[in-house]
Amino acid sequence: MKAVRHGAKVLPEHARAHNRSLVLQTLFHQGAMSRADISRETGLTRVTISDLVAELIADGFIAEKGVREASGPGKPAILVDLDRDGHRIVGIDLSGSESFIGAVLTLDGDIVVRREVAAPATEDVVATVVALARDLVADSHAPVLGIGVGTPGVVDDRGVILTAPNFGWAGFDLESALEDALGLPVLVANDANAAVLAEYTFGGAGDDVILVKVGRGVGSGLLAAGQPLRGSRFAAGEIGHVTVGTDGGPVCVCGKVGCLEAWLSVPALTARLDAVADRDGILRDAGERLGIALAPVVGALDLSEVVLSGPEELLDGPLAQQAVETLRARTLAQFHDGVRVRMTAQGQDIVLRGAAVMVLSGQLGVS
Amino acid sequence: MKAVRHGAKVLPEHARAHNRSLVLQTLFHQGAMSRADISRETGLTRVTISDLVAELIADGFIAEKGVREASGPGKPAILVDLDRDGHRIVGIDLSGSESFIGAVLTLDGDIVVRREVAAPATEDVVATVVALARDLVADSHAPVLGIGVGTPGVVDDRGVILTAPNFGWAGFDLESALEDALGLPVLVANDANAAVLAEYTFGGAGDDVILVKVGRGVGSGLLAAGQPLRGSRFAAGEIGHVTVGTDGGPVCVCGKVGCLEAWLSVPALTARLDAVADRDGILRDAGERLGIALAPVVGALDLSEVVLSGPEELLDGPLAQQAVETLRARTLAQFHDGVRVRMTAQGQDIVLRGAAVMVLSGQLGVS
Ligand SMILES: [Zn+2]
Ligand SMILES: [Zn+2]
Repeated sequence: MKAVRHGAKVLPEHARAHNRSLVLQTLFHQGAMSRADISRETGLTRVTISDLVAELIADGFIAEKGVREASGPGKPAILVDLDRDGHRIVGIDLSGSESFIGAVLTLDGDIVVRREVAAPATEDVVATVVALARDLVADSHAPVLGIGVGTPGVVDDRGVILTAPNFGWAGFDLESALEDALGLPVLVANDANAAVLAEYTFGGAGDDVILVKVGRGVGSGLLAAGQPLRGSRFAAGEIGHVTVGTDGGPVCVCGKVGCLEAWLSVPALTARLDAVADRDGILRDAGERLGIALAPVVGALDLSEVVLSGPEELLDGPLAQQAVETLRARTLAQFHDGVRVRMTAQGQDIVLRGAAVMVLSGQLGVS
Repeated sequence: MKAVRHGAKVLPEHARAHNRSLVLQTLFHQGAMSRADISRETGLTRVTISDLVAELIADGFIAEKGVREASGPGKPAILVDLDRDGHRIVGIDLSGSESFIGAVLTLDGDIVVRREVAAPATEDVVATVVALARDLVADSHAPVLGIGVGTPGVVDDRGVILTAPNFGWAGFDLESALEDALGLPVLVANDANAAVLAEYTFGGAGDDVILVKVGRGVGSGLLAAGQPLRGSRFAAGEIGHVTVGTDGGPVCVCGKVGCLEAWLSVPALTARLDAVADRDGILRDAGERLGIALAPVVGALDLSEVVLSGPEELLDGPLAQQAVETLRARTLAQFHDGVRVRMTAQGQDIVLRGAAVMVLSGQLGVS
């Protein structure tokens, strides 16, 4: 018998927090509307909505935005909306091989300030992140709701870095270290897990999706039914060192042969492209390997799409095209003939925007 | 921008249903306890618990079960428990190639009556299921909480069979057809999805697990963080026709080469075993193919275990052993050196017991 999992206990304060998030979520996605509209959308009573709206206005999260002329008799309706300028979010992306980037974002995920610093020596990473975050908070000119950080490595659900070899971290509580230094809420997640949140909230991704992030290494973030997958040891999405195919392949940095990363990482791809004249052939081979690796995942999770993040000149074109062809050939057409493989439209901002979604979700219950 | 997903609206009647489930869930997993114990376990007030317990006693779901002597001063505590004999569940498994099986189960998932009928002609399937269910309801000698059905095919979240070629069903609302005929709540799901629920609730499976069901075909059911995966088209777990490896393989019934099912289904395995003397070699090859197919899934979902359901004489032994060796060789040891591959201990009852879990979950909120 399994230990009881309580789920959320529905006590009054929880119900209130839930309803508050429901109002914010509704405005976040649908924009300005009247209190009556919110009541209809959420199923909460007019009295409850009036009360919550007053509280959220006092807290600076929503604001009145003029009136809508009544179509029938009666008073014109006052519109309220998320106060999209009332707060800012700071997002930080530690996944670059040469630099860390940070940004100030609106609650809509728009980037209003951007800063970049050279990636420091391993022992200076925390100090560099703290300094970058302080500069961005100073740039914000509005209260900062929180700071989201996307980092390479395996991160647990409380922001502890279980392992991040690039930075020499193992069991390091980055979230607490940054909160202590910065005095603001901080949320830390794996970079690819952050990226898939951005794709979901701002990029139109479906509810069942894998985002494959190609850089120095290859990682991924997955959503099932719109929920992030974490895994039994917080290592969901770590597909870089899965062996692809049964016919050998390039030697990987990990020592094995034929890992996805050895086929698909930017250094591996670039080295092969430099050595050979058949550019399209190299890219198609890499796309085929991606399709081979992902076919069982697409089948098992019944994913509707694969989104690629990384250098467009490598990923978009023959590589993505071959990946989708291989995926369709290696799964059952009846279910997966419609599976898509596409580039993200969010370019280099995807982790920053995903970090903002982490803050929206953690602080406001909006996703 | 995505349409709003409301999540559950926390209205008073929902909170009450939630709390009711919380009490039942606590007793289901922990057994007899006092009202004070339940209050402590659930975080709900003593008054709320007394009220809910009275209601659940009146409904016949829980019963008083004697007293526990007080260790200190004061009255001895009256114990209450799930009235495990007060209701029965009917479970039906349509996945057998030669027969349908049905059972009457206690709320603990113990089978108290079992019936088996020959699998009928396609056009008689519904009538046969209705007759089997009626006989089992008559056998129950207690109110039947509901009827759970595990069937081959792809089933949506309302019990509509989107496709089940064995029975000639496409878009057939089996759940409603059975409810109309039987006048009891009916829950229908894919057989492998039912099986993984049984493994989770009664078989000690972890929160992140795949159950691979091997019979005429090969299917699977997956849980991530203890939640069933459904997929973008309700086809999660359909891994039978994923191509395995890049070196060909046997021709599959679907016409493709090297599908998992062509390596692993009972007919395919049996035919190869009959033709060749090297029994262990054949079983190891099949296990290797299972490991090749599942390595990307174990990596992407960070699964802690793979549970096998089907003929023990085929699956348990060299096949399972080779599967785990292959899985470990083809994933990153740092995360997956502990991954397990094991037989279910539930034998032929797994779908019946999973069907009971569907009813417990759907009718009582217990899982
Ligand atoms: Zn590797
Ligand atoms: Zn096939």
